[in-house]
Amino acid sequence: MTKLDQNPRQARPAFWSELLGTLTASGRRMLGRRADGGRVEAPDLAELGEILLSRRGEASGVVIARELLAGFDQADETARLVFLQALADRFGSDPKRIKKALQAVEKSPESTEAIEALHGVSEPKRQELFRRLNLAPGGTAALVRMREELLRHLRDNPSLRRVDGDFGHLFSSWFNRGFLSLRHIDWNTPASILEKIIRYEAVHAIQNWDDLRNRLQPTDRRCYGFFHPQLVDEPLIFVEVALTEEVPGKVAPLLDLKRKPIKAEEADTAVFYSISNTQRGLAGVSFGNFLIKQVVEELKAELPNIRTFVTLSPVPGFAAWLKKQREDEGSDLLTPDQRISLALLDEPGWQNDKTKAEALREPLLAAAATYFLIARDGRGRAVDPVARFHLGNGARLDRLNYLGDVSDNGMAQSHGLMVNYLYDLGQIEVNHEIFAERNEIAASDSVRRALPANLNL
Amino acid sequence: MTKLDQNPRQARPAFWSELLGTLTASGRRMLGRRADGGRVEAPDLAELGEILLSRRGEASGVVIARELLAGFDQADETARLVFLQALADRFGSDPKRIKKALQAVEKSPESTEAIEALHGVSEPKRQELFRRLNLAPGGTAALVRMREELLRHLRDNPSLRRVDGDFGHLFSSWFNRGFLSLRHIDWNTPASILEKIIRYEAVHAIQNWDDLRNRLQPTDRRCYGFFHPQLVDEPLIFVEVALTEEVPGKVAPLLDLKRKPIKAEEADTAVFYSISNTQRGLAGVSFGNFLIKQVVEELKAELPNIRTFVTLSPVPGFAAWLKKQREDEGSDLLTPDQRISLALLDEPGWQNDKTKAEALREPLLAAAATYFLIARDGRGRAVDPVARFHLGNGARLDRLNYLGDVSDNGMAQSHGLMVNYLYDLGQIEVNHEIFAERNEIAASDSVRRALPANLNL
Amino acid sequence: MTKLDQNPRQARPAFWSELLGTLTASGRRMLGRRADGGRVEAPDLAELGEILLSRRGEASGVVIARELLAGFDQADETARLVFLQALADRFGSDPKRIKKALQAVEKSPESTEAIEALHGVSEPKRQELFRRLNLAPGGTAALVRMREELLRHLRDNPSLRRVDGDFGHLFSSWFNRGFLSLRHIDWNTPASILEKIIRYEAVHAIQNWDDLRNRLQPTDRRCYGFFHPQLVDEPLIFVEVALTEEVPGKVAPLLDLKRKPIKAEEADTAVFYSISNTQRGLAGVSFGNFLIKQVVEELKAELPNIRTFVTLSPVPGFAAWLKKQREDEGSDLLTPDQRISLALLDEPGWQNDKTKAEALREPLLAAAATYFLIARDGRGRAVDPVARFHLGNGARLDRLNYLGDVSDNGMAQSHGLMVNYLYDLGQIEVNHEIFAERNEIAASDSVRRALPANLNL
Amino acid sequence: MTKLDQNPRQARPAFWSELLGTLTASGRRMLGRRADGGRVEAPDLAELGEILLSRRGEASGVVIARELLAGFDQADETARLVFLQALADRFGSDPKRIKKALQAVEKSPESTEAIEALHGVSEPKRQELFRRLNLAPGGTAALVRMREELLRHLRDNPSLRRVDGDFGHLFSSWFNRGFLSLRHIDWNTPASILEKIIRYEAVHAIQNWDDLRNRLQPTDRRCYGFFHPQLVDEPLIFVEVALTEEVPGKVAPLLDLKRKPIKAEEADTAVFYSISNTQRGLAGVSFGNFLIKQVVEELKAELPNIRTFVTLSPVPGFAAWLKKQREDEGSDLLTPDQRISLALLDEPGWQNDKTKAEALREPLLAAAATYFLIARDGRGRAVDPVARFHLGNGARLDRLNYLGDVSDNGMAQSHGLMVNYLYDLGQIEVNHEIFAERNEIAASDSVRRALPANLNL
Repeated sequence: MTKLDQNPRQARPAFWSELLGTLTASGRRMLGRRADGGRVEAPDLAELGEILLSRRGEASGVVIARELLAGFDQADETARLVFLQALADRFGSDPKRIKKALQAVEKSPESTEAIEALHGVSEPKRQELFRRLNLAPGGTAALVRMREELLRHLRDNPSLRRVDGDFGHLFSSWFNRGFLSLRHIDWNTPASILEKIIRYEAVHAIQNWDDLRNRLQPTDRRCYGFFHPQLVDEPLIFVEVALTEEVPGKVAPLLDLKRKPIKAEEADTAVFYSISNTQRGLAGVSFGNFLIKQVVEELKAELPNIRTFVTLSPVPGFAAWLKKQREDEGSDLLTPDQRISLALLDEPGWQNDKTKAEALREPLLAAAATYFLIARDGRGRAVDPVARFHLGNGARLDRLNYLGDVSDNGMAQSHGLMVNYLYDLGQIEVNHEIFAERNEIAASDSVRRALPANLNL
Repeated sequence: MTKLDQNPRQARPAFWSELLGTLTASGRRMLGRRADGGRVEAPDLAELGEILLSRRGEASGVVIARELLAGFDQADETARLVFLQALADRFGSDPKRIKKALQAVEKSPESTEAIEALHGVSEPKRQELFRRLNLAPGGTAALVRMREELLRHLRDNPSLRRVDGDFGHLFSSWFNRGFLSLRHIDWNTPASILEKIIRYEAVHAIQNWDDLRNRLQPTDRRCYGFFHPQLVDEPLIFVEVALTEEVPGKVAPLLDLKRKPIKAEEADTAVFYSISNTQRGLAGVSFGNFLIKQVVEELKAELPNIRTFVTLSPVPGFAAWLKKQREDEGSDLLTPDQRISLALLDEPGWQNDKTKAEALREPLLAAAATYFLIARDGRGRAVDPVARFHLGNGARLDRLNYLGDVSDNGMAQSHGLMVNYLYDLGQIEVNHEIFAERNEIAASDSVRRALPANLNL
Repeated sequence: MTKLDQNPRQARPAFWSELLGTLTASGRRMLGRRADGGRVEAPDLAELGEILLSRRGEASGVVIARELLAGFDQADETARLVFLQALADRFGSDPKRIKKALQAVEKSPESTEAIEALHGVSEPKRQELFRRLNLAPGGTAALVRMREELLRHLRDNPSLRRVDGDFGHLFSSWFNRGFLSLRHIDWNTPASILEKIIRYEAVHAIQNWDDLRNRLQPTDRRCYGFFHPQLVDEPLIFVEVALTEEVPGKVAPLLDLKRKPIKAEEADTAVFYSISNTQRGLAGVSFGNFLIKQVVEELKAELPNIRTFVTLSPVPGFAAWLKKQREDEGSDLLTPDQRISLALLDEPGWQNDKTKAEALREPLLAAAATYFLIARDGRGRAVDPVARFHLGNGARLDRLNYLGDVSDNGMAQSHGLMVNYLYDLGQIEVNHEIFAERNEIAASDSVRRALPANLNL
Repeated sequence: MTKLDQNPRQARPAFWSELLGTLTASGRRMLGRRADGGRVEAPDLAELGEILLSRRGEASGVVIARELLAGFDQADETARLVFLQALADRFGSDPKRIKKALQAVEKSPESTEAIEALHGVSEPKRQELFRRLNLAPGGTAALVRMREELLRHLRDNPSLRRVDGDFGHLFSSWFNRGFLSLRHIDWNTPASILEKIIRYEAVHAIQNWDDLRNRLQPTDRRCYGFFHPQLVDEPLIFVEVALTEEVPGKVAPLLDLKRKPIKAEEADTAVFYSISNTQRGLAGVSFGNFLIKQVVEELKAELPNIRTFVTLSPVPGFAAWLKKQREDEGSDLLTPDQRISLALLDEPGWQNDKTKAEALREPLLAAAATYFLIARDGRGRAVDPVARFHLGNGARLDRLNYLGDVSDNGMAQSHGLMVNYLYDLGQIEVNHEIFAERNEIAASDSVRRALPANLNL
């Protein structure tokens, strides 16, 4: 049985252009095509969208969808923004039909039919537009890219938020976990995918192909990703795993090109040391939770000796938060003693000076414990985004690792601090519930003990 | 790179039951589980649905979704209907939230935000329920089966229609053409798929594996189907194609086990002689249009000599329609002469009597032309469902084939009539438009000429 | 990375015929091609072989090889035999070169070079001919078929034996275990392969596709085969396995279409109940030994609960051997008492008569034990060919199953007797050695105890 | 249908060590295994070979083969050479059996049987040893590496030549074209294979992964290789192809990372600009001939516009040959005028000086024409090895490209000269024959015209 679907970029152009050539003159005119067969002009993109919505023919619909997406790709930035804005302004729901539906509801407020009719007519027309655009070859990928662009304009054009909401709604459905497939990414994976791993790695940058091989090929390294049938060569998210004999506190030895691998069968710990989302256009569609749990499942099945599943994670918000506390003399999240000791942080290179480093250890870890266990952001949530992700998944904050990442980036974002989150299947559900319902943070005793005495819970 | 996803039926049960074991006592209680770990009782299915909607945890959500779907599968028919009815009654939208949203709209009738909020709260809760059920392994297939069952109850329980509408809405999105893959089905296809071709063939029943091989293996036969990533072994729709040297008018020679194949390269005509939908649960999600056009594309690329793409189709509504016209003496769709001649139809076995068969040829073909070109159903549409499908795709009614199918079934449904619809890429768009917009039927001159003189257009 | 090799039957003919067209006039003349491009005449096949051996050009060599094999395929049986005879007569080694090499050896009897030169020139030319024929697309399969035909003539044409020896020598090299791949054959296997399983099953005939499915699809059934890269759709040998909870003594329940499968995880025994070679042309190249051991390995890895690996085997030579002993009154392999009791065997349908069946049990099993443990054929080997195969693999004769196969065939060949051979990895090597070196038969105590008292070892 | 064969490096060790554990005590002793299960000592390798040859059991044979190959891999260089020498000395044919066979031949000099028996006993025992070693997992690859090592010792140990001959004999059979598969290597190929393309490229070194991508990914670049089923990740030979609009004379523009690709459909020329063998251990087994012809076939089928198939090749022997001619004043292959002009070659950097470069053009091209068309090596063959390869394939020397490769390597080996060989299917056979039979060189008129007047043919 042969799979015949073409990669979008290999789609046979002859067929489509032939079909396009069969559009009636009026169809072609609507498409804004000149005699020379050039692409539609950008200003026509929204109009093209309206034609697409108005037609009943599915095959010609595919042609128009293709034209619109190609036109958007080739338009300049201004023209693209014009189209995005039109999505917000011209492709909402139809006020007349809504008015009518509202009157029906008014008349029979108990009628389920009336409510459901109201639901139907209040759906913004762009949702149907997106569904039809999705019929074009490569349509899904094009829509993900379109939203990626939209997101860049959100801050300056709040009215685009409603378009974003519709993208999010549809993408949640299309990228439902049920449609994704988990794959093992290794040194036998096609280079076209591996180069994307290099490009997308967001936590510990991959320097080159040797660095990449060092993360994929040794027997004590694994990498897994989720793929969607419509985004063939694109991992949506991937996680890098090290198999070790103990829970590591530092990242450099894991990435060392010269380290000696151990046999996978000898490992008792799996360390998730990097997890990267790749598609900005899929913001808000969460995969990480499923990915980690399914990888735990895979590893348990393949290597029964592995009993501990743990992350080695950065603490991206810590340095900024600490700076703010130190500047805000009224904050009671730091003790006076701590404030004095932490002054050493301002001396560049302190981490290389044994005495200074030792002097900072306790006060910094105490501040870290406060950061995780006590501090909350303006919406009452844990401050650290990585913590929110893992705690939300049901993990537990297990260990604070002093000077775990002394790279420039590690020192800048967290004064070198790294942490381990522990995935204990027997506790995931409880941890998740108390975090989700009561915002309580699951943490080990060792983390709790690091709190300054006055804050100890 | 290895694909790790399990076939649903092979999913590792250990992992899930372990995770399930980690649910808090209250979680387990809500799941209605007894100490002995037995399945939930059927009456709890709706309650389980409400638990599923109320939870934020995604992993435990998967567990609950799995339980609910398994519970539904194992429940007896009554309990299943109770659940389906609950979907209609208990999983609509929330009246309180709607009331509030309506008030907001009343207050600012121009506010897009208010309208969009109203849209959000008026979405029936079962849509979100279905999306969450879809997270379970094998969820998509289970939901398709659930709808199949629902459809059987629609006539007796019109209130279930609203559930059906939500299924249809989501399935259109999930089974978007962009997510399907076209595959060539041949004698190298796994037996697990081939047995479904035998089972699902809806037009000309496949007698056994020899009959099947005869439709797949010879060089002048092809079969193509659409597959969805979540329904691994299930073709959603498939079409059987014969490559020939002329447009055939009879189906028996095509299916003859003893016919001599020709070389594919020698054929100039591709005949779509059978097209079958397989999943009743996907009613209303149309694939056939895309399938035929993409198969045309494939064949053109592989065999440039093929210039004519044509169906050999049954006329399932003809005999019933003709009976009605003959009984209705007021109908002017039959001429008095025709009525007299057609009386021969009442003599069993007429098709085997040369004289009678010749006498019937002209009046019957005239009636057929009337049936296609003039007659309309209560909604003003072409009467024949197969005709509506192909004409809606932009095909043209090309030829009437007298005694094209003299099987019992063929005689019963259409007095042996078969027809060819022609797919001419250069005309598809025009044909489609005039059919969709004006309900005009594209037909060849030969078909038009068959009309009785008084009806000739 | 795409595999580009064509299936032989799909090879692009244009390329080859173009290349063939470029042969010089003399080349074409040698090929015996007429102006109209028809195939070579059969009588030229041997001449074509000589041309092939004489050429240095590899590409034109492929063309000639292809012509020769196609010519052989299309020739009538007489012409084919003429060619096979020519292989024996005209493609041996060259007497002149041998004479020269012999003189060199005479001159320096100690010279390794002289000996190796002698080895080189004494290689029959047909070996090189076969190697060159193997270059043609589909060449390997064609040569296997050619040998299959040759084998049918061996008895009448002993001079063909030398050709057979060369086939065997090359095939042993080409079908070396290192080049085979083991595959799991199941209900997802392409129909083109499954129909060959039906055709080739040699032990318990497969009635139809339902019977086949019953042996492949249930969770407690397995089938494995060896494949060679050049014989794409052809299993070389395959074994059918039942997973059970005890060692079975009868075959009918295993093949029962209505039996209830158990879960694979619950089985503790794997029963090899049928093993079939498929290619007569590969006679003498042994795969079975490797197949069984590798399947044991696979099953141990997949299902650690399985501890017993055993066959349920026919005893094809028993009835014939017993008849002979009964007729030969001088034979001391039967006791006088046995002779009397065994007379019941001559009463048709005895197996359905409880009393008779019970009366026969002991004497028949005693005769069976004698057949396996004491009797030897003219070459001093165990009489039963199936026994020789399994004992030679290192298995042990474990149990005699009275009335294990009461089918017509089973009664005819072994009075219903079936046996189990046990594959115990810890004993394989010892069993194999004592069998290979001393022709001693490894057997369980229960089998030994069945011997008549006078023969008991 | 699942393929179950393990990659050699993933083979389940448990099974084998278990089987090994079952060897009888004497078996283990022969294997030289100590109680602690350590590897065999290197000096035992030859003895192990003799054990392997003496055994009849195939399964234990696999174990011993595995041990021997592993022992060889882990032995130091001296021990390995000892084993290679033993292959030459101890694994020839058996003098006693030869003597007997010779006597039989003497007695009946006409007996084919006697000759064939003599052939059998004169086969060196190492051939059977190699066949048995090939049964071990990964055996083929290990034997190829073993021969690679052997080749390095040939010059100093001429007695090893006989071992080399046996390797060559078996490899020709095992790596028969019929067992190879042609694959398209592109940017979707696994990285594990691509890194070997980087490593093995022998003509124009690949600098890094960007350079590699530039040769694989653009639409006007192709790469094809032959693979053997037993050397999974190893291309045996590969060719890099550029699709162009004219026959190129310089290599640098082809490799330029910044060049602009053209569409494959626009190209009318396919340029084979690099062809690399990868396995030294397969020396003497020729693949290149088939590879180029099959790639021509693939490209013709995929891109019918391509009409010209040509190489852009180095001239590795030219500078050395020319130096010799210039030093040998008696050589009449250079005219006195040429000798004077060619003195400019001794001025470093002449190629960057327009005047000098122009002055050298004609005399250098004349010398090149002489080099190809007139000069012969000690065995009467064309001097240039690349020329011998392509001319032997039936190509024609088509064009001399002055300063086609001005890299350091290009200047050093050929004073910058590159040439094109043309593969014209209509001429291949004729060219090949006249080259193979008469050593005549097929060349274009333009090459012939470049000859000095006195040598012009």
